[in-house]
Amino acid sequence: MIVDGRKISKRILDEAKDKIGKSGKKLRLAAVLVGDNPELKKFVELKRKAAEDTGIEFRIYEFPEDISSNQLREELNKIAKVKTTHGVIIELPLPGHLNTQYLLNTIPEEKDVDVLSEKSQGKFFTGRSKVLPPSVEAVKQIFGEYNINPKGKTAAVFGYGLLVGKLVSHWLIQQGATVSVVTEHTKDPIRYSLFADLIISGVGRPNLITANMVKDSAIVIDFGRDVDFDAVSKKAGYITPPLGGVGPIVVAAVLKNLVELNL
Amino acid sequence: MIVDGRKISKRILDEAKDKIGKSGKKLRLAAVLVGDNPELKKFVELKRKAAEDTGIEFRIYEFPEDISSNQLREELNKIAKVKTTHGVIIELPLPGHLNTQYLLNTIPEEKDVDVLSEKSQGKFFTGRSKVLPPSVEAVKQIFGEYNINPKGKTAAVFGYGLLVGKLVSHWLIQQGATVSVVTEHTKDPIRYSLFADLIISGVGRPNLITANMVKDSAIVIDFGRDVDFDAVSKKAGYITPPLGGVGPIVVAAVLKNLVELNL
Repeated sequence: MIVDGRKISKRILDEAKDKIGKSGKKLRLAAVLVGDNPELKKFVELKRKAAEDTGIEFRIYEFPEDISSNQLREELNKIAKVKTTHGVIIELPLPGHLNTQYLLNTIPEEKDVDVLSEKSQGKFFTGRSKVLPPSVEAVKQIFGEYNINPKGKTAAVFGYGLLVGKLVSHWLIQQGATVSVVTEHTKDPIRYSLFADLIISGVGRPNLITANMVKDSAIVIDFGRDVDFDAVSKKAGYITPPLGGVGPIVVAAVLKNLVELNL
Repeated sequence: MIVDGRKISKRILDEAKDKIGKSGKKLRLAAVLVGDNPELKKFVELKRKAAEDTGIEFRIYEFPEDISSNQLREELNKIAKVKTTHGVIIELPLPGHLNTQYLLNTIPEEKDVDVLSEKSQGKFFTGRSKVLPPSVEAVKQIFGEYNINPKGKTAAVFGYGLLVGKLVSHWLIQQGATVSVVTEHTKDPIRYSLFADLIISGVGRPNLITANMVKDSAIVIDFGRDVDFDAVSKKAGYITPPLGGVGPIVVAAVLKNLVELNL
């Protein structure tokens, strides 16, 4: 079955809209965009649309590609301080010369809807976070929608990046899955993927995961556009499509976090 | 080969002693002990001896088994505030009615030699910690002593606890190992252990890991006394013994952290 990300997203956003309506509070989300990456701009536009449809004001702060870490840090500190801004996201990846974690740490916990600052991650990794990182929330929502229980399942997580692998692998282990983390240094990825009930991928390398690597009826959640969808979808029990898959759910999860942290 | 934990420990402590001597600074470590667990008392005495041999003052604060989380938190806040105390450790496990993470969070970062508070873990999981958690440092020291390079190795980590599994698995992935985390929910632990170049265990269940589960020449590091040492040592390439194995290295790592954070 193909995971209906738009349907799941709509359910999350309807709930958020409802909560906002009942509260009567005006919420604003700020997105920080550095440089001229058209992929990122497209993703920000999707966030803007979802936010505005949900009754959330969305403000984009753009900065030039060559801004320094210290300059950007100053700007972020200003943005974070605005009382009428309730959440701040930094669009990732940042240009290579910038210190990503240092900049993420400017976002105060109560506005950190992406759960990526050092403090927020400390809370997440000690089981004391009020909200889940959006990638984790997306996996949780997919499990909820299709009644999937991770406990006792075998999972292969491809990639150990800041946004997906590191966070999702931790959460899956906490949920009782047996997790193997496959990285660029793994000699024989198929050894892990072929026995996995659950494959989560967040690498960003097209066709990294091919049909011969996946067992029948596996659940495949693809954050990185790493999966050969046409072929793998014929074998998988559940699979997220490249469009209308995890993307809209992640966007909805960000807005859900904004609501959870503020209402 | 049997890992010589006492030798590695001595090397670390000699270096710490040297640094302290050169600095001329007096360092003090405080250990907080709750209840009457004789195992814990023994471990604290080992820490005391190692500390005093290294020229570090060691002070034990004992509290009754039935102290409440809030009472203990108050006491911890007092202990943490003492300017002449440079590090604070809470002996774990705490009695079951106490909220362990909440109490660990009272320790300020600069005195958190065990790297277990929410803030310290946030730093660790974002790659910004000045020191490593003692279990991680112990693994690193064993690798250093025997020229073991984790990159590209297959690792099975048994257990995902606060002190060992959660921290060591993250670090090993960062070092380029392919890590599978085996927990109580894993259906077929042998599937992971038998192919592992590296087995790290921190469960606390004797004979959990038997000789038939381990491949020839594997590296076996046993934090939880989980390994059937007599049998497994005949197959393993390197193995930590139940006495004089990881224990003294972990103690030395705590004192090393005290030095690193203060000198």
